[in-house]
Amino acid sequence: MRLYNVAGRALIASADRLVDVAEASTGRFTSDPQALYERWDEFRDWAAGLPADGGLVVDPACLSAPTPRPRQVFAIGLNYVDHAGESGFAVPSEPVVFTKFLSSFTGPAGWIGLPPGNVDWEVELVAVIGRTASGVSEDRAWSHVAGLTVGQDLSERASQLSGPAPQFSLAKSFPGFTPLGPAVVSLDEVGDPDDLAIECRVNGETVQSGRTSDMVFPVPELIARLSRVVTLLPGDVILTGTPPGVGMGRTPARYLQPGDVVESRIEGVGQMRHCMVESAPPVQDAAGVRGDDEVAVIG
Amino acid sequence: MRLYNVAGRALIASADRLVDVAEASTGRFTSDPQALYERWDEFRDWAAGLPADGGLVVDPACLSAPTPRPRQVFAIGLNYVDHAGESGFAVPSEPVVFTKFLSSFTGPAGWIGLPPGNVDWEVELVAVIGRTASGVSEDRAWSHVAGLTVGQDLSERASQLSGPAPQFSLAKSFPGFTPLGPAVVSLDEVGDPDDLAIECRVNGETVQSGRTSDMVFPVPELIARLSRVVTLLPGDVILTGTPPGVGMGRTPARYLQPGDVVESRIEGVGQMRHCMVESAPPVQDAAGVRGDDEVAVIG
Repeated sequence: MRLYNVAGRALIASADRLVDVAEASTGRFTSDPQALYERWDEFRDWAAGLPADGGLVVDPACLSAPTPRPRQVFAIGLNYVDHAGESGFAVPSEPVVFTKFLSSFTGPAGWIGLPPGNVDWEVELVAVIGRTASGVSEDRAWSHVAGLTVGQDLSERASQLSGPAPQFSLAKSFPGFTPLGPAVVSLDEVGDPDDLAIECRVNGETVQSGRTSDMVFPVPELIARLSRVVTLLPGDVILTGTPPGVGMGRTPARYLQPGDVVESRIEGVGQMRHCMVESAPPVQDAAGVRGDDEVAVIG
Repeated sequence: MRLYNVAGRALIASADRLVDVAEASTGRFTSDPQALYERWDEFRDWAAGLPADGGLVVDPACLSAPTPRPRQVFAIGLNYVDHAGESGFAVPSEPVVFTKFLSSFTGPAGWIGLPPGNVDWEVELVAVIGRTASGVSEDRAWSHVAGLTVGQDLSERASQLSGPAPQFSLAKSFPGFTPLGPAVVSLDEVGDPDDLAIECRVNGETVQSGRTSDMVFPVPELIARLSRVVTLLPGDVILTGTPPGVGMGRTPARYLQPGDVVESRIEGVGQMRHCMVESAPPVQDAAGVRGDDEVAVIG
C-alpha cells in the first residue's frame, strides 16, 4: 500500500486511481495523513481489503510530504562506510544522531531555494514508525515500521563544518532541505527492505549509487539502538544516512547551483525530483510584515 | 501571567488560586496548554483581565511540562564562555544547535532515572515561542517570545563525547532528561529577561551560579540567527545553554548518583526539584509485552 499526502489529505493508490481514505472508510479513518500512523496496523488491514494498487503513477507535483508533522525526526550521520571516509570521519561505533527541524520539510517535487554557502545532496532511505517502540530488539524492529519513503538530507557544508563542533542539525534545516515522498510504501510492497538500490542523480548524471545493505547500522539495528534511549512514536521518521558520492567528497568539491535538477530514487520505494533555485534571504520583519502572521509549515 | 500544565490541562494563577483556562474563558480557549501558544497574544490579553496572581505557590508534584508537545525543540550548546572552556571547546562564533527528543520531556518535580554512564547537570533558561518567527531582527525578537521557563539539559557524557563527532542530541534524550517548568512566565512578570540569576544546586550545594547576561548569544540574537534558517513556530522551545559549573568540568569530574537531589532555579521564573534514581534498562519486547502498546509521551 502506498500512502500519499495531497494538500493535507490522505490518499492511497487502489486499482487505477487514488482513493480518499476518509471517504472510502466512511470516516473510520481520518483524512490527516500524520494521524493515520497512530492506528497503522488497523489502517493497513483495512486498506488490504481495497482493490490492489494497479501501478498507478501519481504526478509528484500534487504531493506533499507523506509524514507532514512527525513528533520526532531522527537523522543518522556517517551510516555508510565509504561516506564516512569521504566526509573525513571515522566509521562510527554507535549511530551519530541529529535532527532536521520540521520547518525544513517539503514534498517530493518542485523547487528548493539555495541559501548562500555550499549545498550538497544526500539521498536517504527513510523509515516511518507505525508502532510505539521502546527497548525493541533487532529481530522485532521491522514490525514497528509502517513503511518506507525517499528522503534528501540536503546540507549546507560551510556552516555544517564551521565552529567548535560539527553543526549537523541547523545546517541541514534550511527551508525545503528535507524533501520526503512520494509515498509511504508498506513493507509488503518493497521486496527486501534490508537491501535496496539507492541512487541520486544531478542533471541526469548518477552521483550516488549504493545499496541499503551497506549501512553501518541497518534499519533494525538503528531502531533497536535508538529505542534503548528514546521512545519512538507513531509517525516519527528516521533518515537513515546517505551512501557515498556527495559533492563534498569530490576533487574538486562540487555543490548544487541554481538550475540543477536533483533526482532521488530508491528501488521499490519511489523517486523524487527537485529543481534548485537561488533563494532570497528571509525578509526582516522591521515593518511587521513577516513573522507576525502564522506561517504554515511546508508539508 | 504564569501558565501551568496540570495533567494535560492549562491553568493560570489568579489571586490565590489556579484557574482552569477552558472553564474561566467558557471555552474561548482550549484546555490544551500546547495549543494556547498558537493564539498567545489573544490569550495573554484575555488573561490580563483576570485578578492578578497573588503570589500563589503551586505544588510542583502536580505539574507536567508547560510545553508538552513543541513541534520543534532547539537546544544551544556552549553558550556561556566559561562553560565552553570547561567543556574543552572553543567559544563558538555561531550558535551550536542540536535537539532534545520529545520522549525525554518531563515535569518540574519527581524522580529521574540514571542510565549507565556519566550523567551531568545543566540548568538552562528556556524561551517559549508565542508568535511565528522567520527572518526576525534582534530588536523585535522578544515580541516573538510567549514567556520563559526553567529547564535542565541533563546529559550522559560518556556517549555524548564518544564517536567520530560529539553526540549532542541522543545522549541528552534519555527518559526524563528534559524537565521543564514549573510554569511559562510571561515577560511582564520576569524583570529584565536579558539579565537573570540562574543557579543549579545538587544536594543543597550550589554547583552552577551565573547570569543570563553572560550568554555568548543572548536570547534575541539566538532568535534572530535561528530564524534566518528555520521558521520558529508557536510553542517551540529554545533551551539557551548552561552556565559554567557542570560536573564534567571539575577535577575530579563529578556525576549524578542515585539519591542526589537537583534543584534548578532562575530569578523571577521559578524552580524545579528532581531526585535521581537508578534506572532499569528498557524491557526487551521479545514477548511482545513492551513496545506493542501506545506509550504516552511523558509530559
